[in-house]
Amino acid sequence: MLNFNQEDTIMALATAPGTGAIAVFRISGSSCFEIASKVLRNSKGNPIDFSCKKSHTAFLAIVFDGQIVDEVLVTIFKGPHSYTGEDTLEISCHGSLFIQQRMLELFTQAGARLAEPGEFTMRSFLNGKMDLSQAEAVADLIASDAEGAHQLAIQQLRGGFSNEIKAMREELIQFAALIELELDFSEEDVEFANREQLLNSVSSLQDKLNRLISSFEWGNVMKSGVPVVIAGKPNAGKSTLLNALLNEERAIVSDIAGTTRDTIEEVLTLDGIKFRFVDTAGLRRTDDTIEKIGVERTWEKIRQSPVILYLFDVNTTTTAGLEQELEDLKPNLPDGYHLILLGNKSDGNSAVVWNDKFNHTSDWLRISAKERTGLDELQKQLVAFVTQGKLESGETVVTNARHVAALRQTHHSLQQVSSGLSAGLTHDLIAGELRYALYHLGLITGTISNEDLLDTIFSKFCIGK
Amino acid sequence: MLNFNQEDTIMALATAPGTGAIAVFRISGSSCFEIASKVLRNSKGNPIDFSCKKSHTAFLAIVFDGQIVDEVLVTIFKGPHSYTGEDTLEISCHGSLFIQQRMLELFTQAGARLAEPGEFTMRSFLNGKMDLSQAEAVADLIASDAEGAHQLAIQQLRGGFSNEIKAMREELIQFAALIELELDFSEEDVEFANREQLLNSVSSLQDKLNRLISSFEWGNVMKSGVPVVIAGKPNAGKSTLLNALLNEERAIVSDIAGTTRDTIEEVLTLDGIKFRFVDTAGLRRTDDTIEKIGVERTWEKIRQSPVILYLFDVNTTTTAGLEQELEDLKPNLPDGYHLILLGNKSDGNSAVVWNDKFNHTSDWLRISAKERTGLDELQKQLVAFVTQGKLESGETVVTNARHVAALRQTHHSLQQVSSGLSAGLTHDLIAGELRYALYHLGLITGTISNEDLLDTIFSKFCIGK
Repeated sequence: MLNFNQEDTIMALATAPGTGAIAVFRISGSSCFEIASKVLRNSKGNPIDFSCKKSHTAFLAIVFDGQIVDEVLVTIFKGPHSYTGEDTLEISCHGSLFIQQRMLELFTQAGARLAEPGEFTMRSFLNGKMDLSQAEAVADLIASDAEGAHQLAIQQLRGGFSNEIKAMREELIQFAALIELELDFSEEDVEFANREQLLNSVSSLQDKLNRLISSFEWGNVMKSGVPVVIAGKPNAGKSTLLNALLNEERAIVSDIAGTTRDTIEEVLTLDGIKFRFVDTAGLRRTDDTIEKIGVERTWEKIRQSPVILYLFDVNTTTTAGLEQELEDLKPNLPDGYHLILLGNKSDGNSAVVWNDKFNHTSDWLRISAKERTGLDELQKQLVAFVTQGKLESGETVVTNARHVAALRQTHHSLQQVSSGLSAGLTHDLIAGELRYALYHLGLITGTISNEDLLDTIFSKFCIGK
Repeated sequence: MLNFNQEDTIMALATAPGTGAIAVFRISGSSCFEIASKVLRNSKGNPIDFSCKKSHTAFLAIVFDGQIVDEVLVTIFKGPHSYTGEDTLEISCHGSLFIQQRMLELFTQAGARLAEPGEFTMRSFLNGKMDLSQAEAVADLIASDAEGAHQLAIQQLRGGFSNEIKAMREELIQFAALIELELDFSEEDVEFANREQLLNSVSSLQDKLNRLISSFEWGNVMKSGVPVVIAGKPNAGKSTLLNALLNEERAIVSDIAGTTRDTIEEVLTLDGIKFRFVDTAGLRRTDDTIEKIGVERTWEKIRQSPVILYLFDVNTTTTAGLEQELEDLKPNLPDGYHLILLGNKSDGNSAVVWNDKFNHTSDWLRISAKERTGLDELQKQLVAFVTQGKLESGETVVTNARHVAALRQTHHSLQQVSSGLSAGLTHDLIAGELRYALYHLGLITGTISNEDLLDTIFSKFCIGK
């Protein structure tokens, strides 16, 4: 539950988590300056008189806890001329994780409370600095990680996203009206709604919902880095590929099948996008107890990864063999997976022959991890997968867990409606599910507004906003 | 190669990459305000007259590219009263990746150049706002993620190390002046500098240098983490210990000897000190090719690590057996190693008996990785090893490989001076070595610098600092 107590002075990191040149903290509330005076001193080590400082000015200070923790830049905003409408300080410190942690400790010890997600914006709303739809747009603006998402946020500022949801909702309401009408006249066995049309309508809504839901999975993955599993049979050259990508001898490589057992995870940033490469134990049936655990972990990793690099040795793999491997792989691939087939060891002799054989059945990339050929193309494909396929498509990206939960609930209810219609279920059961669907869509647009809703909205903000 | 063109106006994201409530950009250079006026407007959409703005004030603005991209907060710093010494703006925008990208595009289109790593700090150095070792401390401060490393960096940033170097340099300059004076009057065979006094002075400088040089070993480890190898025979419970320390199932554990092959490295911070635990393949003679490579890597890791945790199974190890193991270990231990003997599986039956047998020959710690007993004591010993007499001494610690290289060169030159004085070498040879010594000391603080040196230093910075 969100803390609606506005007496507290709250603080949080306002910039992205992680190490940067600087990190900015925001402190807001009636005791803001009093608390800050316990932690901050001026450059000469003397107390700071905040009452003498003009609003919207910046000055150097030191953070002091018996010894100097950091040299910082402080910007002062006096209420109501601040984001929240309250007395506020923004403190730019050096951006190490250690300093960030220490800042939070020192300010909470001095009497500040860690801000809950969205609490600054909620105070802004409660103090009449912005209305609720603006407040939500702020979160969406920040969550936007691509032009499309940004445009969506701007659209949402004008009511665009709400309109999309509202349109679906209206479609559902009309639909529900027909069903309810049938319900009223059920004893007369009248059928107002064309079943096929209804099914089409539900199906098209479900498609829209599916697209929105799957866009969320993507947005979530982007935050922590894109997991990329390197899988394949033993000796396909997976560890060699990991080493080649990292440009270091990270994983032990040998000619012996089953060399890798523990999964090996390393981060590589390509074109500013973070990828988490996971080298895995080669997929095969084995009696070796340890390798068996390794293989199980490989399947687990495959099931969790949006991107799978599947390696095969072009010199030894037959077309039929590869097709069988892909057949085995299929049930373990996650929804919306992206599979890149890599024909490795293309430096070998049989490569060209193999190429002719398999080329028509599937797209695959010819590489030699050992000779480091084809890797540029692989990296390009990985980056393109992230930037072109998703980021610049202009499609709505849902990054809000509350929205996606409601969308899933809506989808679930529509699924019930759909199978109910097909199975010729009674109208009242279908109508009930439709009401659920409407309720959940209504949650997104805020048709229902109360503390619970505020709580839901603001608790999904990033902390510091 | 770093860009030394100071005519350009540079810009970069100063906060951590990724999505946050806000993101801060820094723009610095002579055309800073001119460029910004092409991108920013005031809240009403009108041009901003930066010349009317007072330094160190903050105001709201909008980013405009035909439509509103974002609403931002701008803080203005007029040179020389800024971090770089140049006209500077800091712009807080909403922290979405899209807005961040758009900001970079708009400002570069308007004439700014993307800053290279460390370029703001380099300008600060070139404009006399800080010396070179302080500039390096900025990077160290941002990178430090544990208290120990942080304290060392902040001390260096505050100029503690610089002052020490400056004092030594002044001493050397006086000294050199005397020697050069003698050189000028050499034909008259005048001796202005008292030889014994000179020797004492050199010797005292060498002591200081020695102390600083030897502090590096510790400083370096504090900065990048203390490597701790977990070694022992197969099945001694090394992977179980790693998992227990991390409190997660990181490494595959089984009863089968030789389960771990690849080294597994994980970081754990204890009492503000970063440790890099390395789980290794068990030490034994083996015909398994892969395990053999693993064992070789274990020996390599042992040779590189200041701290070795050597595990043995108290239930199966004999006193003679352990002594033999330690005998094998000895030639592979690095200089100044710290070996902690761990009697593992002390939850077993034979533990007490074994204890009696071995207790008198060596100190060892009784643990059970499986039951997680004895781990507190182990962690305490690890922390104590690092902090004892090091962390709280308040003495200057060298953490930078470049600094220690320069100190070693200085020391070498002074050694030549010292033996030259003792051997009655000609003054010009001694004066030459003294100039070398001065040169190398000057490199540390940047009294003497060149483009290559600056390039090496600042290219290691994160962008935006």
